[in-house]
Amino acid sequence: MRHSFSHVLAQAVLQMYPEAKLGIGPVIEDGFYYDFDLGAGKTFTPMDLPKLEKRMQKIIAQSLQFERYEASTDESIAYLKTRAQPYKVELAEELKSQGEKTLSFYRTVDPTGKKHFFNDLCKGPHVQTTRELGAFKLMSIAGAYWRGSEKNPMLQRIYGVAFPTQAELDAHLERRRLAEERDHRKIGQKQQLFVIDDRVGKGLPLWLPNGTIIRDEIERLAKETESRYGYLRVSTPHLAKEDLYLTSGHLPYYKDSMYPPMVMDDGTYYMKAMNCPHHHVIYQSSPRSYRELPLRLAEYGVCYRNELSGTLAGLLRVRMLSMNDAHIYCRRDQIKTEFAQVLEIIQYYFKLFGFREYSFRLSKWDPAHTDKYINQPDNWEYSQGVLREILQEMRLPFVEADNEAAFYGPKIDVQFKSVIGREETLSTIQLDFLARERFGLTYVDQQGSRSNEVFVIHRSPLSVHERMVAFLAEHYGGAWPLWLSPVQVQIIMVSEKFSAYAEKLAHELRTAGIRVHLDNADATVSYKIRHAEQAKVPYMVVIGEKEVGAQSLAVRVRGKKEIEQFSLGDFVGRIQKLIAERSVEL
Amino acid sequence: MRHSFSHVLAQAVLQMYPEAKLGIGPVIEDGFYYDFDLGAGKTFTPMDLPKLEKRMQKIIAQSLQFERYEASTDESIAYLKTRAQPYKVELAEELKSQGEKTLSFYRTVDPTGKKHFFNDLCKGPHVQTTRELGAFKLMSIAGAYWRGSEKNPMLQRIYGVAFPTQAELDAHLERRRLAEERDHRKIGQKQQLFVIDDRVGKGLPLWLPNGTIIRDEIERLAKETESRYGYLRVSTPHLAKEDLYLTSGHLPYYKDSMYPPMVMDDGTYYMKAMNCPHHHVIYQSSPRSYRELPLRLAEYGVCYRNELSGTLAGLLRVRMLSMNDAHIYCRRDQIKTEFAQVLEIIQYYFKLFGFREYSFRLSKWDPAHTDKYINQPDNWEYSQGVLREILQEMRLPFVEADNEAAFYGPKIDVQFKSVIGREETLSTIQLDFLARERFGLTYVDQQGSRSNEVFVIHRSPLSVHERMVAFLAEHYGGAWPLWLSPVQVQIIMVSEKFSAYAEKLAHELRTAGIRVHLDNADATVSYKIRHAEQAKVPYMVVIGEKEVGAQSLAVRVRGKKEIEQFSLGDFVGRIQKLIAERSVEL
Repeated sequence: MRHSFSHVLAQAVLQMYPEAKLGIGPVIEDGFYYDFDLGAGKTFTPMDLPKLEKRMQKIIAQSLQFERYEASTDESIAYLKTRAQPYKVELAEELKSQGEKTLSFYRTVDPTGKKHFFNDLCKGPHVQTTRELGAFKLMSIAGAYWRGSEKNPMLQRIYGVAFPTQAELDAHLERRRLAEERDHRKIGQKQQLFVIDDRVGKGLPLWLPNGTIIRDEIERLAKETESRYGYLRVSTPHLAKEDLYLTSGHLPYYKDSMYPPMVMDDGTYYMKAMNCPHHHVIYQSSPRSYRELPLRLAEYGVCYRNELSGTLAGLLRVRMLSMNDAHIYCRRDQIKTEFAQVLEIIQYYFKLFGFREYSFRLSKWDPAHTDKYINQPDNWEYSQGVLREILQEMRLPFVEADNEAAFYGPKIDVQFKSVIGREETLSTIQLDFLARERFGLTYVDQQGSRSNEVFVIHRSPLSVHERMVAFLAEHYGGAWPLWLSPVQVQIIMVSEKFSAYAEKLAHELRTAGIRVHLDNADATVSYKIRHAEQAKVPYMVVIGEKEVGAQSLAVRVRGKKEIEQFSLGDFVGRIQKLIAERSVEL
Repeated sequence: MRHSFSHVLAQAVLQMYPEAKLGIGPVIEDGFYYDFDLGAGKTFTPMDLPKLEKRMQKIIAQSLQFERYEASTDESIAYLKTRAQPYKVELAEELKSQGEKTLSFYRTVDPTGKKHFFNDLCKGPHVQTTRELGAFKLMSIAGAYWRGSEKNPMLQRIYGVAFPTQAELDAHLERRRLAEERDHRKIGQKQQLFVIDDRVGKGLPLWLPNGTIIRDEIERLAKETESRYGYLRVSTPHLAKEDLYLTSGHLPYYKDSMYPPMVMDDGTYYMKAMNCPHHHVIYQSSPRSYRELPLRLAEYGVCYRNELSGTLAGLLRVRMLSMNDAHIYCRRDQIKTEFAQVLEIIQYYFKLFGFREYSFRLSKWDPAHTDKYINQPDNWEYSQGVLREILQEMRLPFVEADNEAAFYGPKIDVQFKSVIGREETLSTIQLDFLARERFGLTYVDQQGSRSNEVFVIHRSPLSVHERMVAFLAEHYGGAWPLWLSPVQVQIIMVSEKFSAYAEKLAHELRTAGIRVHLDNADATVSYKIRHAEQAKVPYMVVIGEKEVGAQSLAVRVRGKKEIEQFSLGDFVGRIQKLIAERSVEL
């Protein structure tokens, strides 16, 4: 159906621009496009789209048939030449050189079968008649080089979306609007969270003051929580010698994802792609006793991934990321409790953030594919059983996935559906049978003998800062909960003459640990209020004649219509309480 | 004098080991050494040092003269051959090949001038007589290859120190003892602060949980203070494209100190050696108004320096460092206030840490060396005047140093003499006239026009974590003030049966935000107490029969003889207060 829409579009374009040369018109996700050459320097404008849509509607209303026919390749080329369609000729000649003897065409024909309209070199398939076409909308115009090469002419591409029903199209457009409005890049720019600069490089966001506040608050949440659960924080360097990554196995298997090696005067170094090898080195930095297990080493560790520059986008795909990482070193009989604790932490976080739509996935090995997995059947069976038990005991919704584990052990992932419909894995807990072998991790047991029964749990409940902030930006649509909000209270003066009072108020709130912005821009009050509303500031206090010296503050609370009255003490108390609770309420 | 001691040492060695072959015996800082070949496999032991010292004392007591004479090079070689001193022969032959016609010798002679003792090929000079020799001590023995090459035989090197008076020697030995005891590497190992591992690489310390606590506390101090002074925190990536460092001028001038370049699919990247270029990019990420100045961007920024592996030592010289960095963007008329604020912050920090022995140095340009400095005479004169005024107005002790400024502007450094006598520059504040030119930094002034009057102040009051922690470890000799102490209260049980009580106490203290270690090792109480004393834990609580259920806690306070009694409430209150104040008292 979507492909048929692209033919209808091309037919409409040829009606309006008979000289247009046709490129290609394939189906894409949710829609279609078609490329056109309008002649030197001529381009479509957004104004053309409604006109083309009208033409298309007219064509569709004619209940045209899509008729397929074949012709020999040479005939086809001759025909396309007569139609003065050089790009189509080029395609047909290429097919000829590949040995194609006949080519297929699709043309639209009126219901009587007499009148032929648009005809296109095409493999199909198509709908029978334009009556089968659903609802569509032309979305945008973009320049696109013929066959993607900048040596070729630049064509004009028209994008459209199409669905079987108007309702489905409307739903899609609404999702799209939401996705656009909530795009973390858009929010990031509007709220000055981060910036990406060509001089620094793609995939390397610079966090602006507002974004740094959000990062820091998330990191503080992690530190406090981890400290409560007995984690010890460490801080490791961001690179290591080649040898370490040969021991860990990242080299050579993971080399393509790592940054290029750096040769120093004492060997070859790599920026780290993972924090685990460094944590293992710390584990080994002193002899460990059974009394120390489980040992939980935590770090917001920075990892470096050499992604291709073309794949880098906003915060979702970056080359340097800060991971809410930790490694738990424990005995086999401690695995269950440790996994349960991490799941508890994850649920605690998600409740705080107000996440509801998520589920768990237990990824297991496949004993039939022993080449894909470390060969410790007993550990696989034991630990998979234990993980299943935990998920059941904690009454968490989960699915099991065979043959989806990591090489070194089973894992539990948390699957999300974001507000804009993107499927995402945010948190992960992985068990690792391999590290103790590769690194020779041991401890001295209660009997004084050395045991190598050291299981490692990799876990990252808060994912990486970059992905988490992007996810939260979209989740909240930029309306951050109070504790994460870069500005918590915005003060607006009706006139400069109230600035002393406003400064005093700002100072008192700041002293109470509240992040305040005093808007002293040269603009009207209504502009400033609108601006603060658009910035989704949780609380706004407007200071005018009436407010100075009054017993109460007039506070506009985000998302509420009526202005609330507070005494300063109550206002501060309420904010402090909500911040301390990390509440999503205002 | 020190050189004469080395001759006396050699004379003593030859008396005890007549077959010994002599290497060289030069002067070093505070002393001397001499290299000997005792024959295959034979070595000195530490037990030999007192014996040699006695011999040396005897020789010195004979009031021997040092007598110089010359001989032709050929005669000298022949003579050294008869003395069976192959290393000396080698030296003499080398001098011959360099064209020396005569060589000089020094021999010890008895006061009558009749008896000759030790004779050595030597350029001198020497004291007249051993009566002029002061106090000495032989310190250690080490293996050393002849002429430093591992292809040559391994000789035995004896090190000694020597001073004109016994008092000076004693003072030196005490300083040395202190330096050794307070060496941050030793404290770092004993207190498990950090570890350096060959698999990761030299100059790349891994911070263990205890060290991470100290780093984090220092960083928290910085964040709180900077927030109070209106700094905005940012977080920037650890690398950037070549272009950025061409703009900043780090390339090519600073290239040798930078990590090797990494070629990615979209250009050449460098790990950052400085944070300023990234901060300048943030400054430029949106148009700035005069209302935003001074803009203070702060970050504990990580920098990478490609130091030669041979120069790396503990935390004092590393390849990756975390800097208490910030850049202040201001107008010329704001320079003075901003410098004054930074000096205020520095004094606040130093008072907290209990530093007393420091002074300031104002480094200025030299108008006679215009090639060494950016050519803005008016800015140099103005800003140097302003900095001098501030130092005077704040009554800070300072010296002025001509021709010591940075290329881009004057600076104020804080000079330290560490407890173990090392001179050190910890903090620095630098003014920068150049950045605005290189990066094109501007703002929109009150009249709405674009001004390039953007002065940049680089400042780092708390230096870098690595250097600061090393300095503090030595300063406190490992007896950290409460707020920095990785363990604040250590709980020791007299027997396992009190563990429930001890656990409860630990839990209550932890809930009050206090860092507690419950020593559950399998050892005697007296061992545990000694261990906690050695670890310099601020407070130690021993739990025995008497303590369980008692109204008061018996607390051993670090540095105090008598045990103090506290109610739990008072104890917690006192600790919380001292932590909040970051007091150096207990």
